[in-house]
Amino acid sequence: MTIENLSANKSFGGWHKQYSHQSLTLNCSMRFAIYLPPQVSSGEKVPVLYWLSGLTCTDENFMQKAAAQRIAAELGIAIVAPDTSPRGENVADDEGYDLGQGAGFYVNASQAPWDRHYKMYDYVVNELPALIEATFPVSDRRAISGHSMGGHGALTIAMLNPQRYTSMSAFSPICNPMTAPWGKKAFTAYLGKDKATWKNHDASELMRQATQFVPAKVDQGGADDFLVEQLKPEVLEAAAKVSGYPLVLAIHEGYDHSYYFISSFIEEHLRFHATHLYK
Amino acid sequence: MTIENLSANKSFGGWHKQYSHQSLTLNCSMRFAIYLPPQVSSGEKVPVLYWLSGLTCTDENFMQKAAAQRIAAELGIAIVAPDTSPRGENVADDEGYDLGQGAGFYVNASQAPWDRHYKMYDYVVNELPALIEATFPVSDRRAISGHSMGGHGALTIAMLNPQRYTSMSAFSPICNPMTAPWGKKAFTAYLGKDKATWKNHDASELMRQATQFVPAKVDQGGADDFLVEQLKPEVLEAAAKVSGYPLVLAIHEGYDHSYYFISSFIEEHLRFHATHLYK
Repeated sequence: MTIENLSANKSFGGWHKQYSHQSLTLNCSMRFAIYLPPQVSSGEKVPVLYWLSGLTCTDENFMQKAAAQRIAAELGIAIVAPDTSPRGENVADDEGYDLGQGAGFYVNASQAPWDRHYKMYDYVVNELPALIEATFPVSDRRAISGHSMGGHGALTIAMLNPQRYTSMSAFSPICNPMTAPWGKKAFTAYLGKDKATWKNHDASELMRQATQFVPAKVDQGGADDFLVEQLKPEVLEAAAKVSGYPLVLAIHEGYDHSYYFISSFIEEHLRFHATHLYK
Repeated sequence: MTIENLSANKSFGGWHKQYSHQSLTLNCSMRFAIYLPPQVSSGEKVPVLYWLSGLTCTDENFMQKAAAQRIAAELGIAIVAPDTSPRGENVADDEGYDLGQGAGFYVNASQAPWDRHYKMYDYVVNELPALIEATFPVSDRRAISGHSMGGHGALTIAMLNPQRYTSMSAFSPICNPMTAPWGKKAFTAYLGKDKATWKNHDASELMRQATQFVPAKVDQGGADDFLVEQLKPEVLEAAAKVSGYPLVLAIHEGYDHSYYFISSFIEEHLRFHATHLYK
């Protein structure tokens, strides 16, 4: 596993760095970003928060706009931001912003032409953490968070792997993709028409049937243009009640789907994860 | 003076908003951004920090990447970010990123073809504050800051108008544009070949001869690729010694020219300005 350093910016006494590597899972070159807090320079192994971004994003959106580094530096948490899909000229794509490159949906595609590269679930759960933990001074304590499509990814990945994550959180997640236009389009393309396979990647379905619990925090803007049609936090909340899932969900009046919302509440998320990462 | 609201995002209990208006000074339509802290919703008039951006930037870079809203919300300071030049199909431009649109250099151009639109000095000093103070619930207490070309703009504008600004600061400013490639190119184009006119827009020249003082804070990254050739903080520091200017200048080891540097230290700048804005 060789990785290439592409950039480095000092930030709050730590370092924001971008790397590329050849992904065996995705069968293409991938870029990711990592924020290493100042604690690592004294030899300390820090836990890692994985951040999954939304439609059209790369590793850069969160690192540039979320204002997370100040708090990560204080708490001693590394943050890893992968890209949102496989990339490259030879990777299947679609004209829509909500399918193909930039829209991997954190599943393993079983349908052609997507099945050759679109294995974002395996990449985020297995290959990327193995690479991170072999390369950087981090521990194997992991939390996971994300926004919109990435919020869907964070919740489903943590619920499918409760032993691998101390805590999960999401901003404006796609809570019930089986019934939302974005989710139905992506799941049909990547997973095929059999809805039985969709249930395994639907946060509300997983939460309703859960028996192992990962501490969960979800925040949603009340003025989010996608709230009613695409995001459906009320379905997640109802599912949590069925299983008794420890979900803390809040709707914030006036906030929208942008990083202005995320940056306003990222401190709460990092402090939430820190209590579990350092337990 | 009519202005049109283009966007609004709730942020830390306040609002980030973008507006367009027809500028009489620049003879074109201009966009700016404003952050209104939560204090304005209780009818309080808040002071304003003007932020001038660097080459290639628009009103968006600072608002998206500087992580200033949290502190502005706490301190009760509005922030206004203008664009970096006149814009539009009929506005003169150049192929270089460092001349023409995106590179107004905060001067009033006297040379054709630039003299028709490029009056960023008058726009920032007069037209924009008049519009802001007539439109929003702000006081006439003003501070000014900026980055790189915008750091040059903030320092020169405050020193030329010490009665209009309570305080000035800059990240990585072009301290001595008369002797730097970026500055020489822009000043030759906009102001002509007579270097006597350049001195009036060179922060080091103004600081050396100053008799009225505006409290000043400058921060510079020690690993900034532009430090030696373009920025020259040592010339500004020497000028401050000649006139006894109250300049606090710091070089920060390892930091570069990016917003990762700005976001790491913006809190210090806002707290510095707050002590003067609320004096």
